[in-house]
Amino acid sequence: MQEYAEPLQRLIEMFRHIPGIGGKSAVRMAFSVLSFSDEEATAFSEAILDAKRKIRPCRVCGNYTTGEICPVCADPDRDRGVICVVEQARDVLAFERVREYRGLYHVLGGALSPMNGITPDSLRIAGLRERVAAGDVREVIVATDPDVEGEATAMYLCRILAPYSVKVARLAYGIPVGGNLEYTDEVTLNRALEGRRYLS
Amino acid sequence: MQEYAEPLQRLIEMFRHIPGIGGKSAVRMAFSVLSFSDEEATAFSEAILDAKRKIRPCRVCGNYTTGEICPVCADPDRDRGVICVVEQARDVLAFERVREYRGLYHVLGGALSPMNGITPDSLRIAGLRERVAAGDVREVIVATDPDVEGEATAMYLCRILAPYSVKVARLAYGIPVGGNLEYTDEVTLNRALEGRRYLS
Repeated sequence: MQEYAEPLQRLIEMFRHIPGIGGKSAVRMAFSVLSFSDEEATAFSEAILDAKRKIRPCRVCGNYTTGEICPVCADPDRDRGVICVVEQARDVLAFERVREYRGLYHVLGGALSPMNGITPDSLRIAGLRERVAAGDVREVIVATDPDVEGEATAMYLCRILAPYSVKVARLAYGIPVGGNLEYTDEVTLNRALEGRRYLS
Repeated sequence: MQEYAEPLQRLIEMFRHIPGIGGKSAVRMAFSVLSFSDEEATAFSEAILDAKRKIRPCRVCGNYTTGEICPVCADPDRDRGVICVVEQARDVLAFERVREYRGLYHVLGGALSPMNGITPDSLRIAGLRERVAAGDVREVIVATDPDVEGEATAMYLCRILAPYSVKVARLAYGIPVGGNLEYTDEVTLNRALEGRRYLS
């Protein structure tokens, strides 16, 4: 017995398809599924198909939704003058959890990375420009990730939105709340210093 | 938008069903599945059903197999005089990877834990006794986990196999190869000392 039985091997490979799941985790998870009851396994299998079938991007902002337009875009109480631009739909949920943000979102679907073939055309950038051009928007908060690609995307958005009368902001860099100065990297610490706020 | 869309929420819950997968991982994995292609999602869904349907425990040893009898039990070159007793089918693969062990296996399906309702009757213990009683077995190596339940199970097996002319062994305890003495806990170190082997 060199290898796992074929159906098990295939299930392991499917789990490995999930980004961030390595070989050992995939094996562990596949074995867990084998110990599910038949009902659980069927429910799991159906949940995958169901989620894929029923969930699609919002026509306006790209956020995941079961309808045409996502609950945020459909909510009449949200401030339509502010758009928070994020890379992924899951980032929307991070902001929603904060409960302070009352504006809308725009999900790019990634960040610019020409090396990996991700150009402005592969992202939901044209849609953002249209929304801004429509005129109601006062401010665009670019909340792409604080890495090279996210930074490049922010610069790019800033440039293409320059012709419109809209303020473009970027999230603040700094030390995380509850973090530890000793373990904060120099780049972050430098940014925190640059962005210091006077208390008096 | 307080919560995830319902089909997504259900998929997240299915991932949380997998032991060792917490809330955040489940969310991350469910979102990954949403970004699968339709073909990939269908393949994933089918792989789950397929694995559940086609894989069953070997009639002799309880190891996972697609047939009646697992490849190890069916292999005429294996030493039928030695049985290695493990808790889970995945433990068989750990031993197979070593490539030194040429005996057979017996998968208990867990370890004794009366507090959690796992009694000898809920494990594949009667089958082990039958195999030993059949007479060909010289040695039983109890390779249950080195924890309280695994230890208790080993003691129990030792007792019920006492009437038969079979040697019962337990895996050696000690420091792991490549491990670090400084970070080895006292109990393990004590066992390593007890089990010391003389080089001269």
